[in-house]
Amino acid sequence: MDQVVAENGVQHVELLSSVNDDHGGVIVEMKEPMDSEAFHSLLRVSISQWKQQGKKGVWIKLPIALVNLVEPTVKEGFLYHHAEPHYLMLVYWIPETVNTIPANATHRVRVGAIVMNDKRELLVVQEKIGRYQGTGVWKIPTGVADESEDIFAAAVREVKEETGIDTEFVEILAFRQLHKVFFDKTDLCFLCMMHPLSFDIQTQELEIEAAQWMPLEEYAAQPFCQSHGLAKYISEICLAKLERDYVGFLPLPITSYFNDQVSYLYLNSHDLNN
Amino acid sequence: MDQVVAENGVQHVELLSSVNDDHGGVIVEMKEPMDSEAFHSLLRVSISQWKQQGKKGVWIKLPIALVNLVEPTVKEGFLYHHAEPHYLMLVYWIPETVNTIPANATHRVRVGAIVMNDKRELLVVQEKIGRYQGTGVWKIPTGVADESEDIFAAAVREVKEETGIDTEFVEILAFRQLHKVFFDKTDLCFLCMMHPLSFDIQTQELEIEAAQWMPLEEYAAQPFCQSHGLAKYISEICLAKLERDYVGFLPLPITSYFNDQVSYLYLNSHDLNN
Repeated sequence: MDQVVAENGVQHVELLSSVNDDHGGVIVEMKEPMDSEAFHSLLRVSISQWKQQGKKGVWIKLPIALVNLVEPTVKEGFLYHHAEPHYLMLVYWIPETVNTIPANATHRVRVGAIVMNDKRELLVVQEKIGRYQGTGVWKIPTGVADESEDIFAAAVREVKEETGIDTEFVEILAFRQLHKVFFDKTDLCFLCMMHPLSFDIQTQELEIEAAQWMPLEEYAAQPFCQSHGLAKYISEICLAKLERDYVGFLPLPITSYFNDQVSYLYLNSHDLNN
Repeated sequence: MDQVVAENGVQHVELLSSVNDDHGGVIVEMKEPMDSEAFHSLLRVSISQWKQQGKKGVWIKLPIALVNLVEPTVKEGFLYHHAEPHYLMLVYWIPETVNTIPANATHRVRVGAIVMNDKRELLVVQEKIGRYQGTGVWKIPTGVADESEDIFAAAVREVKEETGIDTEFVEILAFRQLHKVFFDKTDLCFLCMMHPLSFDIQTQELEIEAAQWMPLEEYAAQPFCQSHGLAKYISEICLAKLERDYVGFLPLPITSYFNDQVSYLYLNSHDLNN
């Protein structure tokens, strides 16, 4: 807890410990257990202090173990911002001015890996769980990117996990945006061209029923690839890549204007440098 | 509430109302206020019933007005899954088998609109709020895509909102993945080439200080475009587009294998059809 001491040295006000953020607001990260009524009083006093200080957004992060503090926080006017399995983030916008609280995450990122060997064979799997289970469909390895994982890294990891194959990321061939796949959230699936560095398949037991190198024509002949828009285009893009120099997007490291953080810009390097 | 009536007609068990999901689980959407202890008892009975039925994931959606039900839900072993301002979604995985609860959203999608007129002028703005406020930087219009909004639609909307200019989406020129921009979440910014359909600028008062059509060379000469990776590449890609037929990704409507849902696949149509 922080203490505010008035200039005459008499007034002592206990406040919740907070740190300032870069946008004129404060962040409270609760870590130790606290009685919910004691917390409620502290929160009320703290808010009036932050108001006087002209603070804007107030963030309160509550680990799930401190679930008893959620109700008093909401009673003071906070809204939910986002949640992860083990914490809940709440936010309260103090001023009358435009609310500039950043929007919550709306998308998850998936990768679909197109791994082709020199014999025009595509690395494909049959899945044990999920909607393809029991369908007999041979599909490319896919998976969800982890938090803060780059797309190219996720593609290498997923292929290795599902099939044991080592690969090198080449480029992004296409991507699909599909809405409302889990509650109101959107799925962005990036099709990644990968160059295989090993060839002996070892399937992951939990999720993968079988894996193999399959001639591209055989993959494309599956009913699944006739009717399914995405699978159909996967085979068409593979053919375009093999026969007509289809160009995708390559990642280029760039730095931020505001700090040294490196990020990746995916673009048509071929046309940029031509 | 649901009631379970045993075959002899004697046993009446009150359960929470739920609907089955497509993955062997159930979804409870609480709407009416309930005493937290009464809810806790009902939840306990319901879970044991769902266990007997072999249910997998149990989802409980609690509107913020029912914040008193969060604590009993967590006490029964639920974890947070995600939250939006006015509700919290919790989830509990019943079986011993692999947890196939979908990952939470990790990304937000932003668009950056590259609008060029026939005089090689770029539509640029100065922002009133955010980190560019007061920097004097002229930048392209940018904004966050709404929930379930397609990238191309978000680009048209943002340009209209910020500058009053009507545009037609042409293609995606590049995109950047930047981690940890808000808490542990990632920003995916799609650079969209737009064709202007109107030319008289009307700036949005709340967020935009000024807007203008600026010669591309003048935009590129800003110190901001020398040091900032993304802004530097925006001007380079514009030049490549004007002078060397830089090709981006175009959206193509496709349908799902499992239902009729339409989504968009962004790909190099030029190379696919060549």
